[in-house]
Amino acid sequence: MKSPTMGKSVDTSDMALFAFNNLIDEYDVEKSEVEAVIIVTQNPDGEGLPHAAAIMHGKAGLEDSVAAFDISLGCSGYVYGLSVLKGLMVECDMKKAVLITADPYSKVVDRADRTTSLLFGDAATATLLTNNPKVAIDRPLMSTRGVDWKSLFVQEGVVNMNGRAVYDFAREAVPKQIAEYLEKNKMDLSSVDLVALHQGSSAIIDAIRSKFSEHKGKFINNLEYHGNTVSSSIPIVLKEQFLDNDQIKVVLISGFGVGLSWATNILRKI
Amino acid sequence: MKSPTMGKSVDTSDMALFAFNNLIDEYDVEKSEVEAVIIVTQNPDGEGLPHAAAIMHGKAGLEDSVAAFDISLGCSGYVYGLSVLKGLMVECDMKKAVLITADPYSKVVDRADRTTSLLFGDAATATLLTNNPKVAIDRPLMSTRGVDWKSLFVQEGVVNMNGRAVYDFAREAVPKQIAEYLEKNKMDLSSVDLVALHQGSSAIIDAIRSKFSEHKGKFINNLEYHGNTVSSSIPIVLKEQFLDNDQIKVVLISGFGVGLSWATNILRKI
Repeated sequence: MKSPTMGKSVDTSDMALFAFNNLIDEYDVEKSEVEAVIIVTQNPDGEGLPHAAAIMHGKAGLEDSVAAFDISLGCSGYVYGLSVLKGLMVECDMKKAVLITADPYSKVVDRADRTTSLLFGDAATATLLTNNPKVAIDRPLMSTRGVDWKSLFVQEGVVNMNGRAVYDFAREAVPKQIAEYLEKNKMDLSSVDLVALHQGSSAIIDAIRSKFSEHKGKFINNLEYHGNTVSSSIPIVLKEQFLDNDQIKVVLISGFGVGLSWATNILRKI
Repeated sequence: MKSPTMGKSVDTSDMALFAFNNLIDEYDVEKSEVEAVIIVTQNPDGEGLPHAAAIMHGKAGLEDSVAAFDISLGCSGYVYGLSVLKGLMVECDMKKAVLITADPYSKVVDRADRTTSLLFGDAATATLLTNNPKVAIDRPLMSTRGVDWKSLFVQEGVVNMNGRAVYDFAREAVPKQIAEYLEKNKMDLSSVDLVALHQGSSAIIDAIRSKFSEHKGKFINNLEYHGNTVSSSIPIVLKEQFLDNDQIKVVLISGFGVGLSWATNILRKI
């Protein structure tokens, strides 16, 4: 299927809708079975009121009985979103729900600023969660360092990033959280087949994986194909390297970025 | 304690911080015990990147190990937020977390537009959720009608509301959802002590309660004191009429508005 190109006539809800339609088509889900839709985004349609999930709900022609809202998180958003939606589904006894990531930074990137304009790519993904999953979502670690939020923020419509500060943060905080996660779960990277870091930049991925030298080869880098697609980067790795590959059973995911916010979890095929 | 007045120097995260500090003070919670903070808002600080919860996290001096994000929902947001946070806490085995509502419509209200400028009030609330609660949160009904999102939206910094369409929606959809909720749970309003509707307008509250004539007196209207405080309206009713009143044990809450989105649930003292 062809995907739409971001432009004036394609908004966040359109990207979300496209991913949603591909998903329900691929997994043979009826629209009427979907009980909740969450969109992870910080670049919703218009001025963010209403939420993009409502607009997408309308465009998709979903039923009244669907819960829909946006989660405002950046590059850690997919890891958070999986656990938020899983928790809500258990709480509400839902059978099927969809987690969407759609955060087109082209809306806020200054094309003249080569530190950001060459970095980001627009993408949207949709993930089906069910009460009878093929992949288990373990218990995440989720963190925030709000005091450093000025490392990455939008002002007057343009994203400002202190690349060095984000790099230093990621190099310090992410390996530490991964190590804490592994220790807490009494495991090490030997029992993980793949590590899907947020695809922030090659330098960041290299810095993080250098802390786990023995298992360096498990850390995916697909930046040359997609760029930094914000909250979509991890699900893109999962789609390309995990879901359809029978050899890969256990994947560690770790997202980090705006907030500053970061989160780590493990997904395992059942 | 005095509360801050919204102005150029007081932002959404400041209102959230104020409510948060009052809460942990009142309930004698240590900052270090808080494991997650969610802010329900569609008017975050700046341009919404980062999320207000991160900025508040920094201002509050919370620890790295706190999960923090915003939920983008309007007047249904508190009802949704309770179940989202409850679900996440179970999923992540958290003991204490805080749900904040802070949606200052003064940021987007056109003061010359009397249909909206006289309606909205700024407020923030904070609710403590624990794994050993004094109030149980039942299973909600959550709905969305995205096809009608143009009844209430922001464009060029100003909120546009089709008051008639919102009124018609609320009058039709909310009593229907409440009735569905009661039927699903095999109960009627006789076993409810209080109904805390979103305080949208007196006309809307009157229209909804007229459908439940026998129990009309249970429907609170505090609009003359606070105005429409968006996602804060229900928790304000709960604070004023439910939490400290031993006679009131079971309250039905129902929020509705932007999206369009609506949700109903029951809270009961344990």
